[in-house]
Amino acid sequence: MSLLVTGTIGMDTVETPHRRVDDVLGGSAVYFSFAAGLLHPVRLVGAVGDDFPQTFRDLFEGHPIDTVGLETRSGSKTFRWHGKYLNDMNERESLRTDLNVVGEKPPVIPEAFQDSAYVFLANTHPAVQSEFIRQLKSPKLIVCDTMDLWIKEFRDDLIKTLGAVHGVVLNDGEARMLTDRHDLIQAGREVLKLGPQFVVIKKGEHGAMLVTPKEQIVMPAYPTSEVVDPTGAGDCFAGGMMGHLAALDRIDPSSLKTAIAYGTCVASINIEGFSLDALRQADRKALDSRLAHYKAMLAFD
Amino acid sequence: MSLLVTGTIGMDTVETPHRRVDDVLGGSAVYFSFAAGLLHPVRLVGAVGDDFPQTFRDLFEGHPIDTVGLETRSGSKTFRWHGKYLNDMNERESLRTDLNVVGEKPPVIPEAFQDSAYVFLANTHPAVQSEFIRQLKSPKLIVCDTMDLWIKEFRDDLIKTLGAVHGVVLNDGEARMLTDRHDLIQAGREVLKLGPQFVVIKKGEHGAMLVTPKEQIVMPAYPTSEVVDPTGAGDCFAGGMMGHLAALDRIDPSSLKTAIAYGTCVASINIEGFSLDALRQADRKALDSRLAHYKAMLAFD
Repeated sequence: MSLLVTGTIGMDTVETPHRRVDDVLGGSAVYFSFAAGLLHPVRLVGAVGDDFPQTFRDLFEGHPIDTVGLETRSGSKTFRWHGKYLNDMNERESLRTDLNVVGEKPPVIPEAFQDSAYVFLANTHPAVQSEFIRQLKSPKLIVCDTMDLWIKEFRDDLIKTLGAVHGVVLNDGEARMLTDRHDLIQAGREVLKLGPQFVVIKKGEHGAMLVTPKEQIVMPAYPTSEVVDPTGAGDCFAGGMMGHLAALDRIDPSSLKTAIAYGTCVASINIEGFSLDALRQADRKALDSRLAHYKAMLAFD
Repeated sequence: MSLLVTGTIGMDTVETPHRRVDDVLGGSAVYFSFAAGLLHPVRLVGAVGDDFPQTFRDLFEGHPIDTVGLETRSGSKTFRWHGKYLNDMNERESLRTDLNVVGEKPPVIPEAFQDSAYVFLANTHPAVQSEFIRQLKSPKLIVCDTMDLWIKEFRDDLIKTLGAVHGVVLNDGEARMLTDRHDLIQAGREVLKLGPQFVVIKKGEHGAMLVTPKEQIVMPAYPTSEVVDPTGAGDCFAGGMMGHLAALDRIDPSSLKTAIAYGTCVASINIEGFSLDALRQADRKALDSRLAHYKAMLAFD
């Protein structure tokens, strides 16, 4: 079934203790698309400025990512982010964020994409997420992400968005901030009261937790000691998860768990390379091989 | 096969945000014994003072814990610990520790226990752990625990102990302190260089990681939102793990993984009650039921 993502398309500058890269392709919708694209075609919606280089567009070639919804806005500039990882990659500092085109009028979902069944609303202003939802004609599964800024400053807008989605993916700190509960199971249950049928709480190197009205499931991260650049891990997780669900066209608890396993594995591939390097070079076979290893790791007699 | 534990037997005073209990039975060897006892008989070695009450001795009744090695030292006082949990149980403060008998000459492994095959050396001075090892006639598997004090102040003694054991169980902070590596897989590999054939790194609410020369395996904690008192969770983990290995009398990688799953589940039962309350009331059936649920949680299509 059709899979749509809305989110940022940006130019990143990333520093780690070992390396720095300037002006590389990044953004939540981009990481999501390359990750989901390993499993299912993706429709990408987002806006860039007229400074968005052709070399970046070329990177989408050979991947099942439909860029019809990539709006190039004349006179605007592309979103930029400059981040730095410290202390063995466990802390991230945003040195600079230039919203640019992301701070302007949001893009519109093209007519041809409005029938999308599976939709991921990557992190942006919750009022914009709600506007995207209104443009959808027949959604089967809408999942959104969010961030601390919206939780703190635009809580009412966020509550409205959460009332209109089927699922939400957020990290542990955000879940705690949103619900004022430290225990993540309790936090997840509080989020469910706001509307979603399931909540996935990302715990970074500690994996992810799925909370539904009936159960809570914890899956560890795939253990890798080759962390080169954690940028985009959360969006890759969401991409692997949604890619699997869209490919399967099922949203039952069992499919959701396998989807989380796919998200876990694709995120672990992504962080083993700088920027999109490792993810772009991965294929379905590499992902399935990692998934098989992850599955075997978690099985016991 | 025979299973022996050496460690503290104490009187605990524990405070949580919800409750306080004074002078209850505690200690590393005690938690280990009740946990392992769900799976296999345990030989307990430790010393107490003549203030150790009969009511505490009565608690062992009905459990397969052989207390022949429980030495009551006349004129000495029992080990005491007073701890307080803060912030949703995520921080622990030791308000008072009275070593008492634990600071005196260590107990000796009784003749009848010196043929023990499976041995867990709970946290104590590494020189004392080495002395226990010398008393063993035919060990098949010796596993030790340790703590920050020995890593910092008695490193040479600890290195000697690590060179004489088959496995080590320690928490994430201790693994990092011991190896000066932040990444836990790398830290685990550094510990292996000191002698052990496997390292289990406990990550509290985030589960445990097994590192061997061939692989690393991460297992999440069993998700429970009913955390009443985390005291003894690490010792229960070790108890479940060693209890399973001794019962099976196998130490291959597959058995070790199942053992970690048992450790995870018995630790999760323990923290759902105050002091030993939940653990003492649990039986093999309850543990196996939890293990089956844990196994199903981690399986996916």
